[in-house]
Amino acid sequence: MNAARRIGVDLSSICGGRGLCGRCVCEPVLGRQQQHAIDSRLRHLTGISEGELRFRARRGLAAGRRLACRTHLLGDMVIAVPEESQEYRAVIRKSEVQVDIPLQPVTTLHYCELPKPGLESNRGEEATLVDALHVQWDFPELHLHPRLLPLLQRSLRDADFNVTVAIRDGREIVALWPGFRDHVYGAAIDIGSTTLAVYLYDLVTGEAVSQTSAMNPQIRYGEDLMSRVSYAMIHPDGANKMTLAVRAAVNQLLSEACEKANVAPQDCLELVLVGNPVMHHLMLGISPIELGQAPFPAATCSWIDLPARELAIVLNPLTRASFLPLIAGHVGADTAAMLLSQLDRLDERVTLLVDVGTNAEIVLAQGQRLCSTSSPTGPAFEGAEITCGMRAAVGAIERVRIDPNTGAVKYRIIGCEHWSDTEKFQKINPPVVGICGSGIIEALAEMARAGVLDHSGALRTSTVLPGMVRVDDCWRYYLGDPATSRIFIQQTDIRAIQLAKAALHAGVKLLMDALGCKQLQRVLLAGAFGSHIDPKYAIAIGLFPEPVAPTAAFSAVESIGNAAGTGATMALLNEQYRHKIRSKVLEVNKIESALAPAFQEYFVAAMGFPEAPEATGRPGRGRRRRAEART
Amino acid sequence: MNAARRIGVDLSSICGGRGLCGRCVCEPVLGRQQQHAIDSRLRHLTGISEGELRFRARRGLAAGRRLACRTHLLGDMVIAVPEESQEYRAVIRKSEVQVDIPLQPVTTLHYCELPKPGLESNRGEEATLVDALHVQWDFPELHLHPRLLPLLQRSLRDADFNVTVAIRDGREIVALWPGFRDHVYGAAIDIGSTTLAVYLYDLVTGEAVSQTSAMNPQIRYGEDLMSRVSYAMIHPDGANKMTLAVRAAVNQLLSEACEKANVAPQDCLELVLVGNPVMHHLMLGISPIELGQAPFPAATCSWIDLPARELAIVLNPLTRASFLPLIAGHVGADTAAMLLSQLDRLDERVTLLVDVGTNAEIVLAQGQRLCSTSSPTGPAFEGAEITCGMRAAVGAIERVRIDPNTGAVKYRIIGCEHWSDTEKFQKINPPVVGICGSGIIEALAEMARAGVLDHSGALRTSTVLPGMVRVDDCWRYYLGDPATSRIFIQQTDIRAIQLAKAALHAGVKLLMDALGCKQLQRVLLAGAFGSHIDPKYAIAIGLFPEPVAPTAAFSAVESIGNAAGTGATMALLNEQYRHKIRSKVLEVNKIESALAPAFQEYFVAAMGFPEAPEATGRPGRGRRRRAEART
Repeated sequence: MNAARRIGVDLSSICGGRGLCGRCVCEPVLGRQQQHAIDSRLRHLTGISEGELRFRARRGLAAGRRLACRTHLLGDMVIAVPEESQEYRAVIRKSEVQVDIPLQPVTTLHYCELPKPGLESNRGEEATLVDALHVQWDFPELHLHPRLLPLLQRSLRDADFNVTVAIRDGREIVALWPGFRDHVYGAAIDIGSTTLAVYLYDLVTGEAVSQTSAMNPQIRYGEDLMSRVSYAMIHPDGANKMTLAVRAAVNQLLSEACEKANVAPQDCLELVLVGNPVMHHLMLGISPIELGQAPFPAATCSWIDLPARELAIVLNPLTRASFLPLIAGHVGADTAAMLLSQLDRLDERVTLLVDVGTNAEIVLAQGQRLCSTSSPTGPAFEGAEITCGMRAAVGAIERVRIDPNTGAVKYRIIGCEHWSDTEKFQKINPPVVGICGSGIIEALAEMARAGVLDHSGALRTSTVLPGMVRVDDCWRYYLGDPATSRIFIQQTDIRAIQLAKAALHAGVKLLMDALGCKQLQRVLLAGAFGSHIDPKYAIAIGLFPEPVAPTAAFSAVESIGNAAGTGATMALLNEQYRHKIRSKVLEVNKIESALAPAFQEYFVAAMGFPEAPEATGRPGRGRRRRAEART
Repeated sequence: MNAARRIGVDLSSICGGRGLCGRCVCEPVLGRQQQHAIDSRLRHLTGISEGELRFRARRGLAAGRRLACRTHLLGDMVIAVPEESQEYRAVIRKSEVQVDIPLQPVTTLHYCELPKPGLESNRGEEATLVDALHVQWDFPELHLHPRLLPLLQRSLRDADFNVTVAIRDGREIVALWPGFRDHVYGAAIDIGSTTLAVYLYDLVTGEAVSQTSAMNPQIRYGEDLMSRVSYAMIHPDGANKMTLAVRAAVNQLLSEACEKANVAPQDCLELVLVGNPVMHHLMLGISPIELGQAPFPAATCSWIDLPARELAIVLNPLTRASFLPLIAGHVGADTAAMLLSQLDRLDERVTLLVDVGTNAEIVLAQGQRLCSTSSPTGPAFEGAEITCGMRAAVGAIERVRIDPNTGAVKYRIIGCEHWSDTEKFQKINPPVVGICGSGIIEALAEMARAGVLDHSGALRTSTVLPGMVRVDDCWRYYLGDPATSRIFIQQTDIRAIQLAKAALHAGVKLLMDALGCKQLQRVLLAGAFGSHIDPKYAIAIGLFPEPVAPTAAFSAVESIGNAAGTGATMALLNEQYRHKIRSKVLEVNKIESALAPAFQEYFVAAMGFPEAPEATGRPGRGRRRRAEART
């Protein structure tokens, strides 16, 4: 272990070289000069030690592997360090999108053996502990959190003056346990307006140990962000009620996550939170009303680091909670997290990052240049404000195809892999509950392609097509046979989607102006909407300007999954990412779409439907391609 | 004001030069070249400004005085800066012992005018505030405590974006108020085993605004320290009960102190606490049991700085509490405070500092060299364990004289200025309740001088003296006529005092050995006992070795009053003292009297009674002077 350190190979360790934690397992390999004898790999090493035998009996040790801390080098050797023994080893997240996160959490465990108090030493046992950690672990500026003082002497005596401490940020001892210990936990928390999610991690191994999620209970005070801000404006205690609601729900999720993974809540010492500005403010107990009126100032955009119990979170009294910075009063910590999750992938390509929620938060990046805005898309993409709309859940139509020649409609629903026109589907006959955001986008794109819509988005009612039914002076377009299908789209639904996509499109155009670029080269779509939507249809409906060459376009659009959660996890598992995103958000050029004169113009221009590239249209119904679809 | 700063004259200011706080009042004086004209003192100054007129109307401004922040220099002038305008002005404490404390508290007020949020600025209002304080007050590394975030935007808007902030340690904003404000408070808290005292100060003016005190309610768990430690050892919840009791009492005292001074509790932002190691541990919620068994390790001896609410103190949630460091497990923060209170007076003279309580805590200093110990005097000096003993309260005998020729006894009691043998005393006839520590010391010294005691401390019963009465085989020496007086001293009382004084004396001797000095040159007596005791008798009874030349001895003994309270106040009012004492305690050579082989020897040698210098003794009763009285 000393040899490794001397040549700059960082071996992991909790026990400080006492053969307890097994983090320094390594594997002697055959050196060039040693190939002459089968057992020569052992020649330049001391034999298996007592400590290794004990460790092998207790925890297991694969044949040929050694504990670096218990093994002496007797001469030149080639030693392989398996990834799990590397100090900053990468953690592969098991989600739809894999991200390698080198493990370097802000809170780390360290085992330490103390001298027993002698008659001559009388500087206090805190000083003894701090000195030992300085000598044994090289922390020169350490102090014990005062809350731990009442536990110190008991803990030391419970295991013969051997303790494991959790050290935060190399400066503060935030937990201590008698004897040896090798687990401590942390959680990434994504506070969405709709959904709350908690991801619990073992900070020593980097392993995801459990995950919980629930609806944001604030929904009862308003479906979308602006209605929650209004609720706070109208009701004197409104903001406080929403704060209490979300905190209670986060507590509940944390408690369930701990229970699922059999983790004691007091062992969860570190939280990282993300959310949009309104969620951020409400979670922190700040009234969001200023975020709802010009000039929309946030109380703070800074990185927040505070005791979790200030947020009424009941874990360990010393658990710390950190909130990623807001980018601006209208671009949140969720966007900062999305940016963080892709930071290492950004290059000279003009890259659009979009997280579509009730607001679309948008970042445009090229090299080191970054700009960002949010667009008021409203909740239509999430299925709200749509007559038959629903969230992306079982029973929701998510894929739609219309035969442009026959007008026949087929669809697929979440929870069933078969298209509605197949025998298997009809045999299963699953309940069709509604249509979700990606479903309605495909429906509209297909409707436009099939000539059901004109380019302004009006339903073509001059010739009655299959599925078109008039009810109370209002036309409905049924997905399937109107006699049996309950799911239809009407003009108001189309308008809601048009407003939403025009807002997003106009926001992207503003950012392109700000960066001075004419064309996107890559589009990264975050969030549930981003993973459900088919990029082909996103482009067909004009959610954003088409990236680069139309033929290569589809591969230029990529779903990046739950980017907010990924960013939060990165900040949880590696403190370097905290510094990175703190400085990065300061470099972002913030565009306030409400104040940009060009926004209205772009918005109006983006209302219509461009034809899909392969659109063939019925004969005689050829439409003029819209100007920006060609640029 | 700018001119003053440029030449290094620090003028005080809260409002930052806006003519609001009046802290920069100064007085133009006649310059040498200007004596030719009566109004020339005004010649090189701009006229009275609008701001000064408003200030004069609102707050008053003496004739000839000007606000430096509103007055421009037009040429050379001599300007006097009155002490109250000097930034680090001395505060004179109104107590028995006056100490000048330059005012430089760790928490300071600063008024600030912010730009209103514009449509272009969107870094959050916290950043706006921090930037303004940086520009207007030169705090480069400031942050807002996260607890204040929910109040920030409302506070800014309540007074048109003008706020006063309290800044702690130049780094953290810990309070904010809309508009201008010029008072903030702090308290020094002395946690004695017997008495708790709270001293409330205005941290802007340095003025003592109120004071409260009460018995330490822990007394119900044990009169002295060791019995409280025993209580904690025997009862599983014992330490916790004592912690709750003392915290409740401190809360009560703080609340009363605020009420007396009409101060809102949330405006009290800073606390400094002192106490002996057991009180220190119990207040911090640390079990004191390790302090009661060898090797007596303290959990911590460090300077403690923590949120006051961690001590269950209910003031402002952001109030900070600091505990002065312990010197060692057996020498407390009260001793550190005593040392701090005298630090500036220490010189090359060998100086003994003593605070007599249940334990005597002792510091011996010569130049930069310091050593310290505590001696287990027990509670006898406080009147406990003495048959007719009581605390120094009304009705307690505190002065005793015995005529060596006639054996006639006279005394004085607390609460009456007349001696008991005067007509006035007999006319008033106040109730005589008992005898306090200083009374019994004088009594014993006088008894020795009058031959009632022999040098070993035995009552001389061979010839029955006036006042000597035998009750149940046990001799009592009554102070006054046994027929009417209820107050007597018996052999067990004398033994208790002998043990106490021998412990103190032996402790002092150990320290003299440690410093390698043969003679004391100055003795500073702290605490109530120190102020009540007559130095002549302290020496006569042998509490400590006689300082220097016997003739000049009495002036070498000085009472320094409530030195623990003074030290705590100094740390409260001037942060420099915090640094001073933190580094000073590390320099103290700690002597554990229980471990020093010489202690027993010194102890035994100090048991007897040296003759008072002017002792005449009855004929035929001359006694051998004890060896160390001659050295």
